[in-house]
Amino acid sequence: MKQERLRGVMAPVLTPMKEDLTPDLPRWISLCKSLLSEGCTGLAPFGTTSEANSLGLGERTDMLDRLIDAGVPAEKLIIGAGTCAFPDTVTLSAQAARLGCGGILLLPPFYYKGVSDEGIFRATAEVIERVGDSRLRVYLYHIPPVAVIGYSLALTERLLKAYPGTVVGMKDSSGDWTFQESILKAFPGFDVLSGTEKFLLPNLRSGGAGTISAMANIIPGEIRGLYDSWQSPDADRVQARLNTHREAIKEWALIPALKALRAERHQDQSWRKVRPPLVALDDVQSGHLVSKFKTSFEEGAER
Amino acid sequence: MKQERLRGVMAPVLTPMKEDLTPDLPRWISLCKSLLSEGCTGLAPFGTTSEANSLGLGERTDMLDRLIDAGVPAEKLIIGAGTCAFPDTVTLSAQAARLGCGGILLLPPFYYKGVSDEGIFRATAEVIERVGDSRLRVYLYHIPPVAVIGYSLALTERLLKAYPGTVVGMKDSSGDWTFQESILKAFPGFDVLSGTEKFLLPNLRSGGAGTISAMANIIPGEIRGLYDSWQSPDADRVQARLNTHREAIKEWALIPALKALRAERHQDQSWRKVRPPLVALDDVQSGHLVSKFKTSFEEGAER
Repeated sequence: MKQERLRGVMAPVLTPMKEDLTPDLPRWISLCKSLLSEGCTGLAPFGTTSEANSLGLGERTDMLDRLIDAGVPAEKLIIGAGTCAFPDTVTLSAQAARLGCGGILLLPPFYYKGVSDEGIFRATAEVIERVGDSRLRVYLYHIPPVAVIGYSLALTERLLKAYPGTVVGMKDSSGDWTFQESILKAFPGFDVLSGTEKFLLPNLRSGGAGTISAMANIIPGEIRGLYDSWQSPDADRVQARLNTHREAIKEWALIPALKALRAERHQDQSWRKVRPPLVALDDVQSGHLVSKFKTSFEEGAER
Repeated sequence: MKQERLRGVMAPVLTPMKEDLTPDLPRWISLCKSLLSEGCTGLAPFGTTSEANSLGLGERTDMLDRLIDAGVPAEKLIIGAGTCAFPDTVTLSAQAARLGCGGILLLPPFYYKGVSDEGIFRATAEVIERVGDSRLRVYLYHIPPVAVIGYSLALTERLLKAYPGTVVGMKDSSGDWTFQESILKAFPGFDVLSGTEKFLLPNLRSGGAGTISAMANIIPGEIRGLYDSWQSPDADRVQARLNTHREAIKEWALIPALKALRAERHQDQSWRKVRPPLVALDDVQSGHLVSKFKTSFEEGAER
C-alpha cells in the first residue's frame, strides 16, 4: 500500500544532550511529539541541525527504534541517513525503510571533494540497490555550504530516471533560489523541499512540497501558518514577517542559537548543550539572542 | 614499556576491492606485508588514500583485527581513526590503542564547517578522554584540501600542552610548506610527517619525522632511499627525481591512478576498482598513465 508523500513543514529535530553529551532520549522524543502537535506536518530527525553527523552509527539506529517505539508515526519521518560510507548509509536507510518511514534524506558521500557526478550517481545507486526495499523513498539532500559536494541538475535528472518512485524529492539547502527554481521547473512532481523557510512561499508558488526548516524547531506554528495560507492575499506579508525571526538570530551560529532558544522556552539551560565541534552559546550570548528574538516578535505584532 | 615512535616512510595503504566492492582482505594484507618489505618503515592503513572514509565502521574494525591476526606488527601501524562523530572515532581509536598500534591518525570532525579552534579542541579532547588509554598516541591529521577544517598552529599548541605524550605528531597534508615549516619550528620533538614525499627532504632538514605518502604505495623503495640518504650530498638530486614520478601522474585523480599502477604491477586489472564516489580509470586512461609513469623512470635513469 502506497502512502501519501510528506508535504508541508518539517523540522530537522534538534538533539538534546545530557551532561555527558549522550542524546537525551526522553527530551528528544518529547520534542518530536510537541513539534508535531504545534504545527509540523512531519519531522526530519538526523538532519544537519540535529547534529546527526556528530552522532555515532549505533546511537542513530537506537534512537530511531526508540522514537518509533514511543509512538511517533513512522510515516511522518524523513530520516537523515547519509554518511561518507555506503555500508553505514545502507544500515540507516534499510532501518528507515523497514520501519515504514516516509523517506530518507540522503547526503552525498561528503568526505572526498572534487568528485564527479558519475561518482555520486554510483554512490547513490549502491545505497538504493543494496537496501533493495521497494518501500525506500529517497530525498536527495543538497547542501553544498556544508557537504561541499552536491547534486547537480543533470545528476538529479539521471537519478530520477534510473530510480523513479524511489528518488522522490530533494531537500535544497543550497541557499540559492535560482538553483531551487531550476529543479522545480525541470522536474514537475518531484518533491522539492526548501532547506530554509525563507523560500517557502516561492517554493509553493513554483509547485514545491514545502520546507524542512531549522527554524521549525522554534516557530513551527508560524511556518505552518504560511504553508496553510500561501494562496491568501496576505501571504507575502506573512513570509516577510517569518523572515524577521531568522534575521534576528543570524549573528550567532544557527544550531547553538536554536538550542539556546529551546533552553529559554523550557527554562532549562542544559538544553544549550551541543556536541563538539559545535560550541554552545554562553550566558551573555544567550541572553542577547533571546532578547533580540523576542523583539522580532514584538515588532512583528506592531506592524 | 614505551615503544619507539614511528619515523621514516609510511604508506597510507590502498584498499583493494572485490567485484562486489567489499575490501579484498587477502590482497590487502599481502600489500601491507610487501610494502613493509619493500622499504616502508611503517604503514598508515585507513588514510584518505585508503578510501577509509568510504568504509563502514564495522568493516574498519574487522579489517584491523584481521591485519594484526595475520602477523603485521601493530607497532608499525598508524591507524586512520577520525570520523565525524566522536563515538565512532572512540571505537576505532580504542581498538588501535588496545592492539598496541603505533598511533592513530586523527581527522578533525569534518562535516560541520566554519567551526572554531575551541570546538575542534573539545572534539579532540572527548576522543582522548573517552578512550582513556595511556597507550594512545595521536597524530593530528591536517588535510584542509579534503576535510576543509584543520588544526591551526594555535590549536596544535593547545593540544600539545593539554595532552603531552598523547598528542605526539601531525600528518600535514595541507600541501603548504610554509605551514609545515611553522609547525616544525614551533614544536621541536613533535613528530611532523609530511603528507607528501615532495617535502620529505625539507621535512627532515627541519627536524621532521618523515612522510606518510600516497606514492609510497608504488615506490616505497625509492622514497626510503631518500630517507636513508637525506644527509648525503646527492639528496637534492634524489628528491628532484622522486618528484618526477608524482608529476608524471598528476593529470589523473590520485587514488584511481595509484590503483591503476598497482594493477599494472600485479597484471591484475581488478586492482583498479574503487568505491564510489571515486571512479576507476578506464583502459585508455590506465594505459596512458602507465606509459607516462614508466617514462618518468626511464628519464630519471638517463640523468
